[in-house]
Amino acid sequence: MQPIAYENASAEVRAVFDDIKRTRKVEDVNNFWKYLAHDPRMLKHVWESLKDMMGPGALDPLTKELIYVAVSITNGCDYCMASHTAGARQKWASEEMIREVYAVTGLANMTNRLANAYKVPVDEAFK
Amino acid sequence: MQPIAYENASAEVRAVFDDIKRTRKVEDVNNFWKYLAHDPRMLKHVWESLKDMMGPGALDPLTKELIYVAVSITNGCDYCMASHTAGARQKWASEEMIREVYAVTGLANMTNRLANAYKVPVDEAFK
Amino acid sequence: MQPIAYENASAEVRAVFDDIKRTRKVEDVNNFWKYLAHDPRMLKHVWESLKDMMGPGALDPLTKELIYVAVSITNGCDYCMASHTAGARQKWASEEMIREVYAVTGLANMTNRLANAYKVPVDEAFK
Amino acid sequence: MQPIAYENASAEVRAVFDDIKRTRKVEDVNNFWKYLAHDPRMLKHVWESLKDMMGPGALDPLTKELIYVAVSITNGCDYCMASHTAGARQKWASEEMIREVYAVTGLANMTNRLANAYKVPVDEAFK
Amino acid sequence: MQPIAYENASAEVRAVFDDIKRTRKVEDVNNFWKYLAHDPRMLKHVWESLKDMMGPGALDPLTKELIYVAVSITNGCDYCMASHTAGARQKWASEEMIREVYAVTGLANMTNRLANAYKVPVDEAFK
Amino acid sequence: MQPIAYENASAEVRAVFDDIKRTRKVEDVNNFWKYLAHDPRMLKHVWESLKDMMGPGALDPLTKELIYVAVSITNGCDYCMASHTAGARQKWASEEMIREVYAVTGLANMTNRLANAYKVPVDEAFK
Repeated sequence: MQPIAYENASAEVRAVFDDIKRTRKVEDVNNFWKYLAHDPRMLKHVWESLKDMMGPGALDPLTKELIYVAVSITNGCDYCMASHTAGARQKWASEEMIREVYAVTGLANMTNRLANAYKVPVDEAFK
Repeated sequence: MQPIAYENASAEVRAVFDDIKRTRKVEDVNNFWKYLAHDPRMLKHVWESLKDMMGPGALDPLTKELIYVAVSITNGCDYCMASHTAGARQKWASEEMIREVYAVTGLANMTNRLANAYKVPVDEAFK
Repeated sequence: MQPIAYENASAEVRAVFDDIKRTRKVEDVNNFWKYLAHDPRMLKHVWESLKDMMGPGALDPLTKELIYVAVSITNGCDYCMASHTAGARQKWASEEMIREVYAVTGLANMTNRLANAYKVPVDEAFK
Repeated sequence: MQPIAYENASAEVRAVFDDIKRTRKVEDVNNFWKYLAHDPRMLKHVWESLKDMMGPGALDPLTKELIYVAVSITNGCDYCMASHTAGARQKWASEEMIREVYAVTGLANMTNRLANAYKVPVDEAFK
Repeated sequence: MQPIAYENASAEVRAVFDDIKRTRKVEDVNNFWKYLAHDPRMLKHVWESLKDMMGPGALDPLTKELIYVAVSITNGCDYCMASHTAGARQKWASEEMIREVYAVTGLANMTNRLANAYKVPVDEAFK
Repeated sequence: MQPIAYENASAEVRAVFDDIKRTRKVEDVNNFWKYLAHDPRMLKHVWESLKDMMGPGALDPLTKELIYVAVSITNGCDYCMASHTAGARQKWASEEMIREVYAVTGLANMTNRLANAYKVPVDEAFK
């Protein structure tokens, strides 16, 4: 499958691309959106969900981006690690912060398996 | 396997338990540590890694705890979700913050698979 | 490891290759089989299982191929996504159908994590 | 966290619940929605995505439900396996069909790992 | 779904159950087989694959059982962790050996994510 | 991120590199360590854990390396599959042994999902 550039996109897709560019103040959308444009309905749903949930809220946008990086590492998604690490840097994450995300993600994946292996029952205090 | 309580623990295990209690200012250690105590060397390595990496650093301890929750959800580890959600609340996470972690984790797992499916190549700008 | 071509294969491996070619009406087997040929017993078990289960049954072969694509996306297996998407197209899947598989797979990975995160108990009606 | 019943739900949440009940012709919504109601924005996004994508399209709703089951098995999500297997039965899936989904899901998870292990390169024909 | 006991099984299923009992020298088969009996073809394929591959070979049966435990922990499969840990004990695994499997599995899951996160390129010496 | 070579490493990192080289009797450390060197604390924790746990114990070092390979295949970590397969060969694993690891890993991933799908309850004998 080839990416769909703005010039070749339908009006429906262009409307989403325009909203992404306006919201993120960028000149062009990332490859992710150009591929997802093959499915205009999902393009719209995914963008609307991300636009609504990834902005400022109870958590600041940088924290959300770091969580995104941690999940992408855990799932081994190369594109997602690259794009969200870039996103975190744009939101002024320092290299130290990014490395701490890596460290915590590694540790969590280890202790997740140790908890599985030992079949640790949930403490009363956590219920 | 049964949890190893302080009373029945070896000196080696007790030393780690004491350090956990002192560091976290708690009266007893969680089940995770009481089970991991069956392997005193791993108990020590895991505790020393967590003690060193989960405290204040480039990221604050709450952000790290939230990343831990996100990874644990992605891996479907019940114990880890419960213990780290409790940990986040102890570090004053609001319910809104926890729900945003859930939302971002859900979204990341969706877009991770869409990026895989469409084989999206990494944008030049992200390299 | 190098792929094992028909010319260099043992009689045992050739018998499986011949059966794959006959069953699938193809001139040569895919790389998957040429690598798995390093383990002739697994080659035979995997082929016999797939031959028996992936053909017509309660589900038509195209539906099974689409399920295969969905699992391969979830696991992030590049080879498997490529080969089974090709397989689906050979069984006359339209591009719209393939994109709907991608969409459903993305959504399922999201709601799987939300169900984990909220610890949703199974409804009585589903038991 | 407790489920949010219709009686206690905000107007925003009720509007989504009403739409689910109307669309699916059910008297009450499943637990999944009652828990997700803690996050009204995600409730709306997830429901709107599912309503739009899980209905008839290039794939029939039953095929989509079966794909959902396969992904949920792969991820080990108990709630999702239960609810989508129930959903498949409601859409007239036979027990034979459901068992074939299980079989294909098992096989796909096996061959995904064998393809990883042997580092099988993608065949030219699949590109 | 209910387990299928020997008394209620078809001749086809009984033949597999008999072979399992004879091969493993047990009086009854585990729940896994009684459930898989709902799909007699998969029952046969899975049993024949396991019978052939899990016995003595280049690796001894205990090593294979321990690998099985490690994969099951990584996937968070409760039944599989329980049944293969029991299998390992029957093959005379000591508690120390089982705990080392747990430790290695935890460590591997950590370093897998760190390698992902840092995008470590494969060393020339490993190719 | 670029790998950190010995010449450019801090004293803290060099001390770990020296210990790796001494312990493993190698002239240079693998890429994994050169990347992880960006986070000297994690470098130290990961190395100390591996040094302590991967050596001879209740399990021999080769068995541990094979378990590492199996987990890395399951997680789809390319670097880890390559480095630990190389590690296994260095510890005198035969090609037959490595292929049996692949086979068992594939089978375990299949039966893990079948156990999930059929919701097999744990046998009394395994508790």
